[in-house]
Amino acid sequence: MRTAATTQSISTQEKLQAAARVAAEVGLLSTEQKDQVLAAMAVEIRSQQDLILAANQKDLATSDLSSSSRDRLLLNAKRIEAMAEGVEAVRKCADPVGEVLAEWTRPNGLRIRKIRVPLGVVGIIYESRPNVTVDAVALCLKSGNAVVLRGGREAAATNEALVRILQGTHGMPQGAIQLLDSSSRESAEELMRARGLVDVLVPRGGASLINRVVEESVVPVIETGAGNCHVYVDEFADMEMADSIVINAKTQRPSVCNAAEKLLIHESIAPAYLPRIVSKLLEAGVELFGDEESRRLAPDQKVSPASKEDWYTEYLDLRMAIAVVHSLDDAIAHINRYSTRHSDSIVTSDETRAARFLNEVDSAAVYWNASTRFTDGGEFGFGAEMGISNQKLHCRGPFGLPELTSTKYQIIGTGQIRT
Amino acid sequence: MRTAATTQSISTQEKLQAAARVAAEVGLLSTEQKDQVLAAMAVEIRSQQDLILAANQKDLATSDLSSSSRDRLLLNAKRIEAMAEGVEAVRKCADPVGEVLAEWTRPNGLRIRKIRVPLGVVGIIYESRPNVTVDAVALCLKSGNAVVLRGGREAAATNEALVRILQGTHGMPQGAIQLLDSSSRESAEELMRARGLVDVLVPRGGASLINRVVEESVVPVIETGAGNCHVYVDEFADMEMADSIVINAKTQRPSVCNAAEKLLIHESIAPAYLPRIVSKLLEAGVELFGDEESRRLAPDQKVSPASKEDWYTEYLDLRMAIAVVHSLDDAIAHINRYSTRHSDSIVTSDETRAARFLNEVDSAAVYWNASTRFTDGGEFGFGAEMGISNQKLHCRGPFGLPELTSTKYQIIGTGQIRT
Repeated sequence: MRTAATTQSISTQEKLQAAARVAAEVGLLSTEQKDQVLAAMAVEIRSQQDLILAANQKDLATSDLSSSSRDRLLLNAKRIEAMAEGVEAVRKCADPVGEVLAEWTRPNGLRIRKIRVPLGVVGIIYESRPNVTVDAVALCLKSGNAVVLRGGREAAATNEALVRILQGTHGMPQGAIQLLDSSSRESAEELMRARGLVDVLVPRGGASLINRVVEESVVPVIETGAGNCHVYVDEFADMEMADSIVINAKTQRPSVCNAAEKLLIHESIAPAYLPRIVSKLLEAGVELFGDEESRRLAPDQKVSPASKEDWYTEYLDLRMAIAVVHSLDDAIAHINRYSTRHSDSIVTSDETRAARFLNEVDSAAVYWNASTRFTDGGEFGFGAEMGISNQKLHCRGPFGLPELTSTKYQIIGTGQIRT
Repeated sequence: MRTAATTQSISTQEKLQAAARVAAEVGLLSTEQKDQVLAAMAVEIRSQQDLILAANQKDLATSDLSSSSRDRLLLNAKRIEAMAEGVEAVRKCADPVGEVLAEWTRPNGLRIRKIRVPLGVVGIIYESRPNVTVDAVALCLKSGNAVVLRGGREAAATNEALVRILQGTHGMPQGAIQLLDSSSRESAEELMRARGLVDVLVPRGGASLINRVVEESVVPVIETGAGNCHVYVDEFADMEMADSIVINAKTQRPSVCNAAEKLLIHESIAPAYLPRIVSKLLEAGVELFGDEESRRLAPDQKVSPASKEDWYTEYLDLRMAIAVVHSLDDAIAHINRYSTRHSDSIVTSDETRAARFLNEVDSAAVYWNASTRFTDGGEFGFGAEMGISNQKLHCRGPFGLPELTSTKYQIIGTGQIRT
């Protein structure tokens, strides 16, 4: 046992070192070279569909999963085509590497240029969805980074097949994609301790995975995560607009992080609006919880009492908690207290009140008269998305290629010395 | 004992929570309001000089320090004046908060705006230099952040006096500056675990402090740190320019992170250049170490053999290690292997070779024909500096006010929902 563990441990180290070694080469590829590899990757994914499906069948046969996990793991022709299209979308995005962000000359004649450079090695720790493998590889290649993948155990065969195909693509630098062993915790632990070899770690998955990475990683992390999102229907809201935004934000796809989980209603509009939206939400199959005032105004006891925990909870399901607030200040305070700082929306026709909401709600994305469901790299027009950052350092909200880079100062002199 | 520890622990928590609570208020101060507070701060620092000096005397009397630590801790009228001037320099810097970084309209009519917002709460862990207290408070206030300070035990009385003065300045939001107890490790440990209350932690001090924070912190960190900086004298270098750059980079202020520690010389210029620069460095009092080839070329055995460790070492002293390299590739590989990715310089008259060096050396600041000593917020023209980041995430190299902010997306709609 001891020997096996040691061997495996050396092997993860070797993979991390190989990624760190090849990173410089990946970083120096031209846009044209990278785009050729990406085009070839899409071709390979399509042409090796049978091999991918066979590996996926192996994973599906060996794992004992809930139906939702099974669905996340399952590949079919349509999903493989979507992977190939994802790679092509990344190919079409602008190359961030080399972009000059600022350039100036100092009084002593030194010319200073701040340019975008690759991060180096990007680590991804994720769960069962195999499309993350392809997405992450395409995004990291285009941004000039080597990538270390640590996927879920239940997708091991699928990920191995995908990585073999991607690594074998014509023009891909040898070693630029490293897949770590997913059968034990050790490889993830080594990845999280690989400061100096890995420049950033992005966890993608459920709350427990993300919390573990945030807690344990010594490598800098971009935290992606939970969305306890709010819609606030203000005193001056257009009720029809409010209906459509609330219903969309809650029900269009309840399982995702930008779906609304909470509804706040201003007390002056609540007697008219609350019974109306409660009926519509119930009609849409939403289970409702509420504070005392909401329950008093709601028809026929259709709203269950909300517990203290409810205000903090991301249901990811057809459930919603409703609170009546006394003022705009109350709404902002409630959101800043309970939200996960992801996406929150105000419905109002009053511009001054909207401006206060947009400035004072401390979330990655704040909306005025729109559904929270738009917090997404694609919807923002980014072309491709690595995730949605829930932290304030490095990047916040949906992030893609530019956020997979760092910067560097190049300083050009004529012999200047400091006096 | 148990009771005392618990009481103290609650008190650190209360301070962290107070900072988190007041952060929104600090973030909403106008530029004018912040500048007024900064102007008042400078006045207070000057007018309370005696009180500050008395507190500093108390620290100096009670602590048992080396002469260099004692010098870092020591305040006098000139240093207090420099603190006040530092605050005024921050006041003159542009306010980063509210800056619109990008703005666009989507095909569905959604208007998206990416703006700079404060990080929220910035934590600083530092050692004996009391000017960090004043610098950090001024920078955090101007960037709209609350600040939590955890200074060194030996500067406790000085820091308390300074914080009392700064917190008492007219217009400073109550609780925006929190000074943690420096008498035990516990307050630092709580600060490092305060994810959710503190948005970023900046360690400022020696390598062991920085490593400890990087290892232990669950709060995202901006790593500042060591500089094992190189000057590479290329085959096509102007030898007089090389002399002046090498001597300046090594000797102008050897105790700082942007001082050069290593000298690489191309083999074709080495027979002519190495004996010459060795004499000049010895004349300047620099102790020299070298690889075999350097020692062979150096006059009279004046260069001691370099150990393997030397190539990794930041001397922070009048010492330098010299290696002869066979090519530009060798020089780049050597730097990327041993450097701390801080500041590295090439001396050459060949533009193509310089461009390769600037692109391929993976350091925060890369120089062509200039001293490494310019890696500094002031020298870059930033007006004020919080530190020099040695990591790639969030910011790299010298950083000041803009890097003490995050971003936020404000999205303005007319009822858009996602379909």
